[in-house]
This record gives sequence, structure tokens and C-alpha cells, in this order.
Amino acid sequence: MLVTRTTEDTSPKNVFAADLGGTKISAAAVSRRGKIVARVTERVDTASKSAPVFQIARLAEQLARPRRVDEAFEAGAVAVPGLVRRTGTVWAPNLPGWESMPLRTRLERALKIPFAIESDRNAAAVGETWLGAARGKSDAVMLVLGTGIGAGIISGGKVIRGAHELSGCAGWIVVNDWYTNEVRHVGQLEAFAAGPGIARAAAARIKAGTSGALGMYGAEDVTSRDVAEAARDGDPEALAIFEEAGKMLGRAVANIISMFDPEVIILGGGMAGAVDLFMPSLNAVAREWAQPLASRQVKIKRSQLLGDANLLGAARLAWGLVTAKEREEKSGRAARA
Amino acid sequence: MLVTRTTEDTSPKNVFAADLGGTKISAAAVSRRGKIVARVTERVDTASKSAPVFQIARLAEQLARPRRVDEAFEAGAVAVPGLVRRTGTVWAPNLPGWESMPLRTRLERALKIPFAIESDRNAAAVGETWLGAARGKSDAVMLVLGTGIGAGIISGGKVIRGAHELSGCAGWIVVNDWYTNEVRHVGQLEAFAAGPGIARAAAARIKAGTSGALGMYGAEDVTSRDVAEAARDGDPEALAIFEEAGKMLGRAVANIISMFDPEVIILGGGMAGAVDLFMPSLNAVAREWAQPLASRQVKIKRSQLLGDANLLGAARLAWGLVTAKEREEKSGRAARA
Repeated sequence: MLVTRTTEDTSPKNVFAADLGGTKISAAAVSRRGKIVARVTERVDTASKSAPVFQIARLAEQLARPRRVDEAFEAGAVAVPGLVRRTGTVWAPNLPGWESMPLRTRLERALKIPFAIESDRNAAAVGETWLGAARGKSDAVMLVLGTGIGAGIISGGKVIRGAHELSGCAGWIVVNDWYTNEVRHVGQLEAFAAGPGIARAAAARIKAGTSGALGMYGAEDVTSRDVAEAARDGDPEALAIFEEAGKMLGRAVANIISMFDPEVIILGGGMAGAVDLFMPSLNAVAREWAQPLASRQVKIKRSQLLGDANLLGAARLAWGLVTAKEREEKSGRAARA
Repeated sequence: MLVTRTTEDTSPKNVFAADLGGTKISAAAVSRRGKIVARVTERVDTASKSAPVFQIARLAEQLARPRRVDEAFEAGAVAVPGLVRRTGTVWAPNLPGWESMPLRTRLERALKIPFAIESDRNAAAVGETWLGAARGKSDAVMLVLGTGIGAGIISGGKVIRGAHELSGCAGWIVVNDWYTNEVRHVGQLEAFAAGPGIARAAAARIKAGTSGALGMYGAEDVTSRDVAEAARDGDPEALAIFEEAGKMLGRAVANIISMFDPEVIILGGGMAGAVDLFMPSLNAVAREWAQPLASRQVKIKRSQLLGDANLLGAARLAWGLVTAKEREEKSGRAARA
């Protein structure tokens, strides 16, 4: 099909990137240098199994307007809250029916541009190495701390995936003898150092009848955010809870340093806002236990991109598709010449 | 230089591989399919800093005879007991003066064939994925258990190196609260689960005045081999020592499963001969603590190549150089055609 286009039209300058969460979705048009040109955020439509797919397509069309998606965007990418198989199918426990959603195929068919699909933690690691706390680094581990704990691992410039896309299940790192029912279900590090573990530690103190600031909260509904607030107000119990979590995280970070020898470890996810509360104990314990030569050279940093890490990582992956295609076309031209 | 050669002479069929240890060196001519055609083993010559380099060159000449090295071998490779920088220089604490030995350059200049240099643990992992317990696998971790503990990690078909070639320092994995002076110096896992740790545990029981089989040994000179022998004779204390080491190793293996999601974890090194003594507790503990989906799919196996793992891994790396050169020549011919 021949369409009259301006030079600008024939050479679109942006990619489409989406960060699909369990409850929220952000989508953006992102330039080659990583500028978010336009963005939109909505609640995820979970009315049906296919609803999030239609929603992503609709957001792409909305961001492309007045052009068509394949006129406005060179490629697209989606960060998803789950595992991505090599075929681009997704398993996402928080999205109804997403045991094996062929997300890449469906979006490519609907929107006529190539798509990359990546797990949120890997996308976040890619984002931070592109534009954030690990900019330009080829060996970086992104520890995503929130309701759960996971790691996006980049080694030698490549995302480490594992044999079944299960690499970076950092919530399962073992660092001491504590075994509880939560440990069995979510892993030891996650049971004690993720948001719910921090809330559980606070609930235990509330139930024990604390006279401190945590006493203002109910044992049933105290959150890690409440504990962070109490800690910022100087409550010693709340501070101790974060210090303990930091020690657990520090040993896990030590293991990551000793096994991966990264240049940077980035702490991100929902708990990144409380990083000041657990960084001192995390850092001290990590340095104490890790292989000393690797430990001396690694930096431990808070995420720079924070809530945009997944989205910008997805954008980088979409630009990766564009670059690969350009390289292919170039070598094709060279062969024909 | 034009030399009259038979067809066989112009197309040599073997590579030269060497496994340089702290005290022993093995060298071999290895065919494309991994057959050890000829082999020689000697004590390492540590008379001078350069002595091991001359020794490797001499062994290559000896194995090439009556042909020249560059007639007999397409390429060479050496597995070394230390770290290999990207430039092919080696840091090996057990070889006098090897802080930054330019091993690759020196061997290539002396022998006129291309050389690959690799750390022993990475070479062992490559060997096992080529011809051993992880044959054909692209995601495998080789845990080398001996005087020290290290891991060779292959993920997505590539050796994981880290930013400073310090990946796989598995002896430093933290799995519980025990902190001793040894932990500070060699890492927690190594302090308790490597050979010297096992000997230390036995020495403690001997000093405490055991009435068991360990009482036959002196606290000062009991070795992990002695403990293995006593365990094989059914001594409950010796069995308990290996069971405890297995539990420590099991938690470390759990961490490896959760972070790397490999298809196979291979247990090798000097302690591989005692694997029956610690495998039951290792396996049970690893399965209990690891991320369940990854755990269900991973195999935990003893090394198949045992003492030949490093040597055959080196041979595979040398063949890798040959294949890369052939591919280059082919694409060069295609471009000229």
C-alpha cells in the first residue's frame, strides 16, 4: 500500500511501551533517547481474560493519534507481572486466566508492529542500565522489593533468564535458620523482608501490647507503609523492624555479590521509598558477608527511575527490536552491493 | 613458508588442552569429538614465575611430536587455578608470582596457535555441558567442592563471568547465622562445607574426646578423607559431619536454583568421591528451600568427568576457537563469492 507521507511520517521516531501491573497499567510513547513523549495511566481492565490485551491495543492507538499505530511507532514492548516464555506467552497469576497468554502474537497481529514482552523485574533492570542507577553497566542486579521480592539480572550485557524463565526468584534466597509457614509459601527472604513480612513483624508487636507508636495501628490491618511512617517519627520498634529486614536483605545481597559479581545492585520496587530505613543495616551486613574483592567494587544504590523503571525498560527493549532490524537491513544492503 | 605435507598434516585433527593445578598439571591431545588421544601428567614446575609457562609449552611440543605444535594442533586452551581477565592474563594465588601472568600472549607467541585461557571452575562447567553430567544443556551450574568451593555457571549457553571475573564465588554463600574467623577469611559455606571445614569438625570431636572411630586420628592432622573413610565404616559421628555439610550445601544449592534456574547442578571437585555421604541431606534441604517450580525441574548430579572435567572443558574451549575461525573464513569466502 502506497500512502503519501511527509518525511516525518515515513520515519517514526517513537516506540510504544507499556507497564502492565496487577492493578494499574501505564503506557507511553518513548523517543530513541528515552524521553517519555506522552503517557497515560489507567486501572487494568480485568473484565475478561482478553480485556488487558484490548486495553493495551487501545492505549497504543490513543497514543498514536492522529497517526496509525504502525505510522507512529517503530515497535512496542510490554513489561508484565509474571513470567514470559521464549515464545512471548505470559503466565501472570494476578491477571485472571493468564496461564499462557500469547501476548506478543496477539499484539503484533492487532497493531502491525513488532513487540517485545518481558517480565517486570527484567524490564526494570534493563531500564536502570539504560537510563538509571546502572546506566551503561553490563553487570547489574535489580532487586525489586515490594509485596514480593524478585531480581532482574543482567550479566555481560544480557538478561539472565534461566532454563524456565525462573531466574531471579530472589524472594526464595535462604540466609538463616528461620522456617515458618510463610517461608514455605513465599520463600525465606520474602517472608521476612518484603512488605507483608514487615507488616507481620509489626502486628506481632501490636499483639504483644506495645506501648510505642505501633500501638496506634490494628494488628490486622497495619501495613509496611504505617511501619515506615512510625520509623520516620523515630519509633524505636518500627526502626528495629526495618533494621532487621535490612540485615536479611544484606545477607541476600552478599550472596548476589558473591555469585554474580555485578558492578551495581539497585534497590527498587514499592519499598524503594523506605530505603533509607534499611540501607544502613543492609549495606553493613552485605559488606561483612560477601566475597571481599567483589564487595569492594560493587555499588549498592536506590533505583533512580523508581515508578518508571519498568516502562523505560520496555521502551529500551522495543528500541532493541528496531536496532536489530536496522542492522539486518544494513547487512542485507551490504550483501546486495 | 611452504612445506610439503600429507593431507593429514595440513588438516590437523586435535587440539591441545592443559589443566594447570596448584601442584599437578595434566595435558592432552583431544579430538573434535572429545576423545583424549594422548595425555601426560606431571608435578607443576614452580622453580620460577615463568616455569609453568615453559612447562606447558614443552608438554605441547611433547604431545605434538613428531610434528610441530602448529601442525599437530588447531588451537590450545589452559584451565588455570585462579582468575582470568578478559585479556588472558591470570591471577593464581597458588602459583608464585602469578598476579598478572600474560599466559595467553606468551603461549600464542611461543607455539603459533591460538589459545583460550579459562578458570578451572568455568572450564569444568564447560566440560560437563560438553561431554558430562550436563551434556547438551545451556543452563548448568558446576559446584566444585574441594579445599575450596567455587562454581562455574553457564546460563543461556554462555559462561557467566561477572564484572571482574569474580562470579561463582560460591564458598561465600551465606546460609545461616554462624560467623567464625574462618567465615571471615574463606566465606561461610566454604568454612563449614569444604574439605578443611569437615576436617575441623572432626578435630573438634577428637579434642572433645570421642569414643568413636574418629578417635584413631589426631586432631591436628585428621583430613576430610579420613572422615569419609570413618563414615563409610558406619561411624555415626563421621556420618553426622557429612550430613551437616550436606545441609549447608543444600541451602546454598537452593539459592543457586532460585537465582539461576538451571537445568542441572553438578557436584564435582575433590569431594565428589564422597558425594554419597552428603547427597541425601543436600538434596532434601535444597528441595525444601528452593523456589518450588525451579526446584521441581532441576537435576542435582555428581560430576561424570570427575578429574577430566577441567581438561575436557579446556579442549572444548580450544575447539570453540577453531569453530569461530572456520565460521569467519566461511563468511569471508561467501562475501568474496
